[in-house]
Amino acid sequence: MPAPLLDRRDLEFMLYEVFDVESQLTRERYSDHNRETIDAAIDVAQAIAEKYFLPIRRKVDTHQPEFDGEKVQMIPEIKVALDAVIEAGLASPGADYEVGGMQLPALASAVTGAYLNAAASTTMGYIGLTNANANLIDAHGTEEQKAKWVVPQRSGRFAGTMAMSEPGAGSSLSDLTTTAIPQDDGSYRITGNKIWISGGDHELNENIVHLVLARVKGAPKGVKGISLFIVPKFLVNDDGSLGERNDVTLAGLFHKMGGRGQTSTALNFGEKGGAVGYLVGEENRGLMYMFHMMNAARIMVGSGAALMALAGYQYSLDYAKERPQGRLPSAKDPMSPPVNIIEHADVKRMLLAQKAYAEGAYALCLLGTRLADDERTAPTEEERAQAHELLDFLTPIIKTWPSEYGPRANSLAIQVLGGSGYVNEHPVEMMYRDNRLNPIHEGTTGIQSLDLLARKVPQNNLAGYTACLLAIGTAIEDARAYPELDDYAGQLAASVATLKQVTEFLLSAMVEKDIDLVLANSVKYLDLFGHVVIAWMWLKQATVAAAALAGEPHEADASFYRGKIQAMRYFFRYELPETEVWAALLLQLDDTCKNMENDWF
Amino acid sequence: MPAPLLDRRDLEFMLYEVFDVESQLTRERYSDHNRETIDAAIDVAQAIAEKYFLPIRRKVDTHQPEFDGEKVQMIPEIKVALDAVIEAGLASPGADYEVGGMQLPALASAVTGAYLNAAASTTMGYIGLTNANANLIDAHGTEEQKAKWVVPQRSGRFAGTMAMSEPGAGSSLSDLTTTAIPQDDGSYRITGNKIWISGGDHELNENIVHLVLARVKGAPKGVKGISLFIVPKFLVNDDGSLGERNDVTLAGLFHKMGGRGQTSTALNFGEKGGAVGYLVGEENRGLMYMFHMMNAARIMVGSGAALMALAGYQYSLDYAKERPQGRLPSAKDPMSPPVNIIEHADVKRMLLAQKAYAEGAYALCLLGTRLADDERTAPTEEERAQAHELLDFLTPIIKTWPSEYGPRANSLAIQVLGGSGYVNEHPVEMMYRDNRLNPIHEGTTGIQSLDLLARKVPQNNLAGYTACLLAIGTAIEDARAYPELDDYAGQLAASVATLKQVTEFLLSAMVEKDIDLVLANSVKYLDLFGHVVIAWMWLKQATVAAAALAGEPHEADASFYRGKIQAMRYFFRYELPETEVWAALLLQLDDTCKNMENDWF
Repeated sequence: MPAPLLDRRDLEFMLYEVFDVESQLTRERYSDHNRETIDAAIDVAQAIAEKYFLPIRRKVDTHQPEFDGEKVQMIPEIKVALDAVIEAGLASPGADYEVGGMQLPALASAVTGAYLNAAASTTMGYIGLTNANANLIDAHGTEEQKAKWVVPQRSGRFAGTMAMSEPGAGSSLSDLTTTAIPQDDGSYRITGNKIWISGGDHELNENIVHLVLARVKGAPKGVKGISLFIVPKFLVNDDGSLGERNDVTLAGLFHKMGGRGQTSTALNFGEKGGAVGYLVGEENRGLMYMFHMMNAARIMVGSGAALMALAGYQYSLDYAKERPQGRLPSAKDPMSPPVNIIEHADVKRMLLAQKAYAEGAYALCLLGTRLADDERTAPTEEERAQAHELLDFLTPIIKTWPSEYGPRANSLAIQVLGGSGYVNEHPVEMMYRDNRLNPIHEGTTGIQSLDLLARKVPQNNLAGYTACLLAIGTAIEDARAYPELDDYAGQLAASVATLKQVTEFLLSAMVEKDIDLVLANSVKYLDLFGHVVIAWMWLKQATVAAAALAGEPHEADASFYRGKIQAMRYFFRYELPETEVWAALLLQLDDTCKNMENDWF
Repeated sequence: MPAPLLDRRDLEFMLYEVFDVESQLTRERYSDHNRETIDAAIDVAQAIAEKYFLPIRRKVDTHQPEFDGEKVQMIPEIKVALDAVIEAGLASPGADYEVGGMQLPALASAVTGAYLNAAASTTMGYIGLTNANANLIDAHGTEEQKAKWVVPQRSGRFAGTMAMSEPGAGSSLSDLTTTAIPQDDGSYRITGNKIWISGGDHELNENIVHLVLARVKGAPKGVKGISLFIVPKFLVNDDGSLGERNDVTLAGLFHKMGGRGQTSTALNFGEKGGAVGYLVGEENRGLMYMFHMMNAARIMVGSGAALMALAGYQYSLDYAKERPQGRLPSAKDPMSPPVNIIEHADVKRMLLAQKAYAEGAYALCLLGTRLADDERTAPTEEERAQAHELLDFLTPIIKTWPSEYGPRANSLAIQVLGGSGYVNEHPVEMMYRDNRLNPIHEGTTGIQSLDLLARKVPQNNLAGYTACLLAIGTAIEDARAYPELDDYAGQLAASVATLKQVTEFLLSAMVEKDIDLVLANSVKYLDLFGHVVIAWMWLKQATVAAAALAGEPHEADASFYRGKIQAMRYFFRYELPETEVWAALLLQLDDTCKNMENDWF
């Protein structure tokens, strides 16, 4: 029997026990749903993942898309699999009924996506980006734009991309130079070069809708002069049929270490005089609109990283249960039969670490998913505002922690398999390669750390920061109801106290000292905050597990809950204490890195 | 100008200032050598690396060897490059004059290999294994075997491999089942399947000499019943010409994530009745002989990991100096020109961490290299015995620390390049893939940690352990001569005290408690000891640098020495304090992992 893609029991634990999706079903939007409809949607997703994506996973990885000079060639099974997702209504299961969605709560929608993403590696990225593109035009486009560009994206006729980076402007969007010249008919002509455009060209769909950041001629420099344009691969007639080819050409494909399920392209706009583009919203507000898409994309990146970690954990766990090798140190008889490797304490450590990283990270991503839903659909304005505040604050952590620890989990999955983990008979080496992109795209770890410390913490008079610590405090109190969790609750309270001390120290230093020095260890601050947040996610899971154990569940469930508590214990003993090292560096305003001179390297 | 492969200044610092190769030149064996001859050999190695290996590096990686059903096909440039190494006498520059070597001291020999390995990724593995094979037969074979198998390996006619792992016996060699049946002519017939045989089949050489572990029929079970055999691909006539094909067939090639410079094969022995094999030494002592080769191989693995880290560091450093992007937090004006990314504190951190990991790891490997030389060529029996004791003790750390931290350094190199680091236009993603094998082969990190704690520490009444702490103590005293190093000397002394406390605690627990529990966190013990040893390597380098700075060197040298001190500071502030977390776990005999039950996962 092949290894399970994901642990269904754990997904149900997250969905129904930790984040309580059923409590959202009283909302009008979700009134058709109940646990049965949600489970049915997950069943379909799992079936498609296992039938269409899993069998082609290795082939997708070993046959990366190639540019034959005219078109992007990829194996035909990819389109078959993606079409199966679209036909099952799972491309955007949270979308409105009118545009073909199922109006599933975001948490349920995320869990259907979990199976697809775990099996499809990055192939599902075509659908994910198309959704994100459609969501942005839905939020900021005109009615005409929605009819022309959103409807065919929702139905699967068109695909969508986001085109931001340029050869001279990656992390630093303020330096982008792509230009837009207004025309008499209200459209613009776009000229410039974009790189790292995922799904930037392919033959999977009739048309591709690029959302392109560019500067209108004469606009201010910096981020305040950036506008957003819809630039299609093919122009579209008023009746919805395709018109002529727009002036957008594929300059080449990048050959990536992983993530070969999705093309990454360089695109040239306007080589023949200018690509036709249509302004979204107002001029010079493009970056603000794009952040709408980017925030969602950041949660998608974190979730993808966590899912890859979960998938590697399940795979290596299955292997460890089946693979005999070696004996325990206490077994001196070489004639005794070898044990399965899961019996070795160090293999248990590597599995437990994966579980702690992967399930901790995924819990955080689902918290973000729930908040993104509450932000839109919670019954009161106050609840919506609270959800927005907390989600906005947590976004750099949701993006980063899973992206940093997901690859570590995948590295441990390789290590559990040993030499077998290093060859492509098993998928763990692919996961390790795929996952390595996550700390880079949609804002590197360094960028996220500056966003957290210099923007998200101080903004709105520390509102998001305060809300986050308050939520952690509540979880600590909840845990104290269970005597076996009391020590861990105390440990997290102490870590929070350290975090507060560090934060207050850094905020006053920002006023009094060299800002470059205060921000020099921002990544360590993100590490510190991230570990506290993941410890929170684990204490929350352990509290749910302790409550369930008090109800004397049947044996399989009891084992599951004990595993949750043990993984929490692992995180608190092996990982959380590292925060003390990082806090000490931050409290010293350590200048070792900042003061390293270029010619000393 | 392309990025330098390695920092020649740093290699010379290691060679002449830290490990003082010139002090070995008084030995008879090395009496022809001086700094000029050594530098000349390094020049040749660098030239070959740059002329033959560097230009084909990407091609080797993207055109991995394929089995066409008859032969292993690989790009022809590989043989050209390897032949250039052999013709220049650099295949085994430390070997005796009589067999075509240059009798270079091992340190100098290692540094010539540094350039070749940094450029060739794993292609140089063909030569490395051939050397190791020849060295083993030299040490344990008969005169006839040396003439027949060693001489053609030294000249480059034949290649060599080591064939240990089997599908059911990877880490656990005691379970191997390949059998050997004695024949009337004194030879044996070998039957069994071997996997992960690097260089197990190819057309680069006339013949391949496999060193195969097998059990003579009727031998005891376990490790005490394993013998070692020479099993050639082609039999060899008494005049040295090739005879008929032996009964060794290629079952297939593994498709590895990295390390594509060298084939990894599955070999079947005896499909047609038994491969002809020749016993090395005595029956049932095979594993002891193989350890001779394995210990050298473990130092090779550590060095390879460190060199890949050094190469990634140099590449990303060069990139960071050239690539403009973004502004410092203190620069508010979006019109100001972007800075080169080396100006960002977080990029400095990622470069400094790479420097600390890579140069710290490489220093340790060179210490091992020097000890391996002293073990054979030091003037007195006592010095040779001391070198042996310390090297034997340090081997699991030399194997593991570079293998664990080398990939981390390469991951940081990718991160410095951002999206560019993830695509194959730049070599850092390849280095990251190549380096990931190192914590696995030649004994996994878990295996090394058991070797350290359960065998190397207690053996010979703690002699190796005691010698190691004594050497660290001397380095601490040396550092105290320089006031700016005093705090760091004190910090290392405190870490050593913690290490001693942990070691004594664990050794008595081994007597009193459950051995499985005491060894459950052996990897954390290896982490702890490894960090202390690397801190020692850094304090040693900083001491040499401080002494040189006191002599008021010219400016470029002064910058180099200041960089050494700053990297030491980085390691002591950002990395060494983690040992406190690991020590706490060990002192509690933490049972979280050991007590995790299989059905809790």
